[in-house]
Amino acid sequence: MTTIDPCRPVDAGTVDEWFEDSDVLVIGYGAAGACAAIEAVDAGARVSLLEVASAGGGTTALAGGQIYLGGGTPVQRACGFEDSAADMEAYLLAAAGANVDPQRAHVYAHGSLEHFDWLVAQGVRFNHEYYAGKHTNTPEYQTLTWSGNERGYAESRAARPAPRAHKPHAFWEEGGATLMATLRAAVERRPIRVHVDTRALTLLREGERVVGALCRQDGVVRAWRARRGVVLCCGGFVMNREMVARYAPRLKDATPIGSPGDTGAGILMGLGAGGAAIDMNEGFVSVVWYPSGEFCKGVFVNEQGQRFVNEDCYHARGGHHCLNQSNRKAYMVVDSGIYTEPPLYAAAPVLQVGETFEELERDAGFAEGTLSATLATYNRFARAGEDPLFHKSRDFLRPLDQPPFALLDFSIDTGIFYPSFTLGGLDTTIDGEVLTPSGIPIPGLYAAGRTSAGLPRSGEGYASGMSIGDATFFGRRAGRAAVRGG
Amino acid sequence: MTTIDPCRPVDAGTVDEWFEDSDVLVIGYGAAGACAAIEAVDAGARVSLLEVASAGGGTTALAGGQIYLGGGTPVQRACGFEDSAADMEAYLLAAAGANVDPQRAHVYAHGSLEHFDWLVAQGVRFNHEYYAGKHTNTPEYQTLTWSGNERGYAESRAARPAPRAHKPHAFWEEGGATLMATLRAAVERRPIRVHVDTRALTLLREGERVVGALCRQDGVVRAWRARRGVVLCCGGFVMNREMVARYAPRLKDATPIGSPGDTGAGILMGLGAGGAAIDMNEGFVSVVWYPSGEFCKGVFVNEQGQRFVNEDCYHARGGHHCLNQSNRKAYMVVDSGIYTEPPLYAAAPVLQVGETFEELERDAGFAEGTLSATLATYNRFARAGEDPLFHKSRDFLRPLDQPPFALLDFSIDTGIFYPSFTLGGLDTTIDGEVLTPSGIPIPGLYAAGRTSAGLPRSGEGYASGMSIGDATFFGRRAGRAAVRGG
Repeated sequence: MTTIDPCRPVDAGTVDEWFEDSDVLVIGYGAAGACAAIEAVDAGARVSLLEVASAGGGTTALAGGQIYLGGGTPVQRACGFEDSAADMEAYLLAAAGANVDPQRAHVYAHGSLEHFDWLVAQGVRFNHEYYAGKHTNTPEYQTLTWSGNERGYAESRAARPAPRAHKPHAFWEEGGATLMATLRAAVERRPIRVHVDTRALTLLREGERVVGALCRQDGVVRAWRARRGVVLCCGGFVMNREMVARYAPRLKDATPIGSPGDTGAGILMGLGAGGAAIDMNEGFVSVVWYPSGEFCKGVFVNEQGQRFVNEDCYHARGGHHCLNQSNRKAYMVVDSGIYTEPPLYAAAPVLQVGETFEELERDAGFAEGTLSATLATYNRFARAGEDPLFHKSRDFLRPLDQPPFALLDFSIDTGIFYPSFTLGGLDTTIDGEVLTPSGIPIPGLYAAGRTSAGLPRSGEGYASGMSIGDATFFGRRAGRAAVRGG
Repeated sequence: MTTIDPCRPVDAGTVDEWFEDSDVLVIGYGAAGACAAIEAVDAGARVSLLEVASAGGGTTALAGGQIYLGGGTPVQRACGFEDSAADMEAYLLAAAGANVDPQRAHVYAHGSLEHFDWLVAQGVRFNHEYYAGKHTNTPEYQTLTWSGNERGYAESRAARPAPRAHKPHAFWEEGGATLMATLRAAVERRPIRVHVDTRALTLLREGERVVGALCRQDGVVRAWRARRGVVLCCGGFVMNREMVARYAPRLKDATPIGSPGDTGAGILMGLGAGGAAIDMNEGFVSVVWYPSGEFCKGVFVNEQGQRFVNEDCYHARGGHHCLNQSNRKAYMVVDSGIYTEPPLYAAAPVLQVGETFEELERDAGFAEGTLSATLATYNRFARAGEDPLFHKSRDFLRPLDQPPFALLDFSIDTGIFYPSFTLGGLDTTIDGEVLTPSGIPIPGLYAAGRTSAGLPRSGEGYASGMSIGDATFFGRRAGRAAVRGG
């Protein structure tokens, strides 16, 4: 057998025997794939669902499980928060960068309530508990929390802030595993033909139409037929270090987070079938200085002794800016009042301690009059409850006035945790149709989740819950669109 | 006739009649295409060279014409500069970003002297005049000048600095037109079949091998056969505003510079044939505050009143940083001593004037103690001949101490000139072979110049002369490789 290349689709005419014949073939059984399969089978299609691992789950099963939902969900209302689809859409546009897809933000915001109901109908349990703390996830069973930059200066002027992260009822970081257990049960209640330990190798085509895939199963290559469409839900490419180096070199030195299946196989198969990939340089890169929220009262500075971000921002926005400073150097100044409770994730080493800002500045090697001036100005405004430079909220604004002061090194080269995953992928319509570089849908080919460039397209604009929210929402749309065919 | 899609190659078996039969078909008659054609014909191949415009020239003919050459060229030596291939390579690696291709930098630096000689052999005239000023090109006929960040702090520690921009003997900005006139004459001396007013529409294939192209000429579609290879030298995509929005949204609001042919057609044809495109988000973006060098003595600040770059850096590094500041706001503070000579290109509006830094800070709306502290610190160190924050060279380091002071607005939203072109393109080997996303060369397909991701891959690491240097150097290699076939 010659090597099968994911980028080289095979002519379906060469298939001797079809192992399984379906209307819709979903490749990848994470959140996107499960939702695509459920919607496709509910629309009357015969559906096959393939997974390279030994069970469904994907990267979502390893995640905290937050889902970015809003517009006034029952959870939001029960917890006393007002929200609207218009505010949610405005937030998505304001937080994101130049590469935002306004159409995707619109349908996502306006479809969010229906999506909430659909998840509940699949068995996903949300509770009506709200967690108000500054954290990366709700620390116990609470469903609702703030997860992005909704209360940020620019964002809160563009849209009324509301917490939108909805974690399925589960303890601490078990939200993702719980969500996937629920979606797996929903899959299993339906006549979906699930195959685990099955690796898709390349797509099958008739002319330009994608009609199936060659897969390795039990050590042999078998052909799956898809009479209406193939939906690629194979995750991102952060575990494919060559692809990261080639397409997203900025993420190279960060710690990949994902499942072993995030090899970019779906993106490569889509490219091979003529699809375009966009935003391939983009990724989530975080550094995590909370919880507790105490360090949000600290001051991030670069090697010039300058501040560069509001320290109460979302951790991926912080990571984005830390990585953008010269020589990727990022430090935090804290005082004794806030250092009593070091952050959960980032054991940032203490570089220097000083009784005064001037001493800290000198002993840490900052140029005279830089760090000390930054901190003096910060303190002067903080005493008045203001942060005119970066608009940190008053909740975290207090002068650093309890010596000794410490300088912590949050730079990526210290080896502290900079988690990262990729956000680039196949360019699709809002119905998951994979587009060529000319912008034409490829007949029979769909993608969702991190195999596609979805709702979240930059780390700076990210909020927890956006990727699973996107994967489930647009996975569903892709599943339905594949049944309609095209 | 159905619409021909550049991303949809056509089966050569459908061609009724071949209009022209060659060994090597070069598409695009700019610097890369001319050099590819010359090398291919000199290697004994029958060569066709196609151009969509009415004459050869491409974007190079509109450019200033500098060519980044080094390693101790006759010009460098005559002007009293020492250089080596090792220093040139080290510089290229130090100046570039995480996406640098070390193999490309290596062959380029070590092949630079031979490339100089080859250009001279084609008729390109260099003189032995050196221009020492801070400029975007040599203002008269001078060949040699500094064009990048060679004397920058990090770069000069990594590599002995040398000026490497070599402009062909021509007045001021006529270097590119002169270079292309010379290369056109070199083409015309050879039996290269040149076709202008000829638009390549899509590639022709036999199986996976690229064997020619369909082109529109005189209003009809004609087929060019290439028995050994097709070399795509069609320029970048900055004039294709849809592609810019899709792949390089950061460049959207900058002013595209290029020729009308920079529509991305070569990249699209390469993608359609199965090629990978990389660095598609990257581009040259500049803002030009010199000549004269007087404004290099000013101080760039962002809306936080912080400095962010050494003001004597290369203009595309400055543009990169100006665009990266929050809200894309970038200002320059000057005093009366340097404002006497405003810069040539950027008529940055004066936002505010003040007799003291404190007055300027207050009246321009900076937070108290920010801009004034920045400038006080700058002045204090400048008086000692130091810039510990950004290491501006002493040539441009003097305190701003001649009131009144002015704050100029260099932000992109003022409408001042932010020239930009794209740097992403097809992923190729150093011999121009176009690679699939799996990293496998596509038989018969080559690319060079801005159709490929070449030596310059970021605006921050750019130096004038790198794009024409890359296009001519790797264009030659692609032409030779196409003759060898593969």
